[in-house]
Amino acid sequence: MINVIKVGGGIIEDQSSLAEFLKSFAQLKGKKILIHGGGRLATTLAKKLGIESKMIEGRRVTDDATLEVVTMVYGGLANKTIVAELQALGVNAIGLTGADGNAIQAHKRTGWEHDFGWVGDVDKVNADLLLSLLNQGLVPVIAPLSHDGQGHILNTNADTIASEVAKAMSTLEETQLILGFELDGVMKNPKDASTLISKITKQDFENYKADGTITDGMIPKLDNAFKAINSGVKAVRICNAMKVGDEKSGTTIQ
Amino acid sequence: MINVIKVGGGIIEDQSSLAEFLKSFAQLKGKKILIHGGGRLATTLAKKLGIESKMIEGRRVTDDATLEVVTMVYGGLANKTIVAELQALGVNAIGLTGADGNAIQAHKRTGWEHDFGWVGDVDKVNADLLLSLLNQGLVPVIAPLSHDGQGHILNTNADTIASEVAKAMSTLEETQLILGFELDGVMKNPKDASTLISKITKQDFENYKADGTITDGMIPKLDNAFKAINSGVKAVRICNAMKVGDEKSGTTIQ
Repeated sequence: MINVIKVGGGIIEDQSSLAEFLKSFAQLKGKKILIHGGGRLATTLAKKLGIESKMIEGRRVTDDATLEVVTMVYGGLANKTIVAELQALGVNAIGLTGADGNAIQAHKRTGWEHDFGWVGDVDKVNADLLLSLLNQGLVPVIAPLSHDGQGHILNTNADTIASEVAKAMSTLEETQLILGFELDGVMKNPKDASTLISKITKQDFENYKADGTITDGMIPKLDNAFKAINSGVKAVRICNAMKVGDEKSGTTIQ
Repeated sequence: MINVIKVGGGIIEDQSSLAEFLKSFAQLKGKKILIHGGGRLATTLAKKLGIESKMIEGRRVTDDATLEVVTMVYGGLANKTIVAELQALGVNAIGLTGADGNAIQAHKRTGWEHDFGWVGDVDKVNADLLLSLLNQGLVPVIAPLSHDGQGHILNTNADTIASEVAKAMSTLEETQLILGFELDGVMKNPKDASTLISKITKQDFENYKADGTITDGMIPKLDNAFKAINSGVKAVRICNAMKVGDEKSGTTIQ
């Protein structure tokens, strides 16, 4: 079983949250791949450099200057901080962008109403490379950057990379996708830990949507989870980022 | 034979020089490892961020803010730009810092008259990892950053990393160190290409130093070359960075 874990930028930008998350991540047994975000750190650096962070419908527009910023922040600062801290925890991490070892090939997004700049839509994940690294005892840590094979780095959403990596790894070995976030999982009442739903089927999801139990940001998260399952991923676990190492935590979708 | 190639920051910061260098690098046959600098790019970013670049005796002092800058620039911008461009040239490059795969272990420099901050002196190069990547057809591209195994990235001179990598690889396979710079090699008269010295022995070097033919910056470069040879490196070639791919270019030390 391969575990593909996604953690968001909010946890990475805070030193103590990151340390706590990585400690839990280190406890996960077996083959594992970490995909991290870093959007807020990029916004901070862009601001310091006087580069305006342009967003269209919640998506970052990646012009030349912004591409340099995300390459530095995602591929450099965030990725190497995580790798160095994992090494200290005894995890033999190796940081990658999609360009490294041709890990994630993509093409520049075109044909949309807006020009998002240097944004990549994923074409192919190099699952053979990732499995070969895993088989050497290495733990790939992937920044949300892909490449077009023409010499350009492309900015790519970390959730998308996590799904695509999980799908690709599923063609070689059983794979679970773990989405770490700030809540304990899918809850009937987010303020009451006892209302955690530990397992959810497609039918449950439809029912919960219909009766208003599941709303807002949780809907696209679950939509993506079911999409991954339909694409061959064995299971998806949505859980508190600080509990990714506890196999029983969170909500499991199968 | 493994080739370990060092290229300085001056060539990397200029887009067309970098493209020309990489084209020549791509032509080198067989197993190869690239080590790059990036000091000038780091100085530029530090300046933009209002961080003063402190130098003591020509060495950069790496305080907390500077460590973030070099991690972003060396590990992110410079490294990933090179990797993406090599991929476009058909070279399956994989970018590494010393933290990735525990490639280069070091310790924070202590016991010197000055405090250089987060600067690392190399303890061990993970030659097994590098050889295993080479045997998979990958081309490691190494940024001048090491780590201390305690969670800290350390700033380390690219020339030192190149020498240490070449020495470590020599314990596994015959290794040549290639030092790319702005001149064609060791020349009796740097302004006259016909005065290139194509081979140089230790005795020649001593003679040339004594009669004033070889002076200034070329002396430490050659001192380091002979040190590498004494540590088991099969050959050192000092050549124009744009000609690293031409096995016959430059000055060879054996």
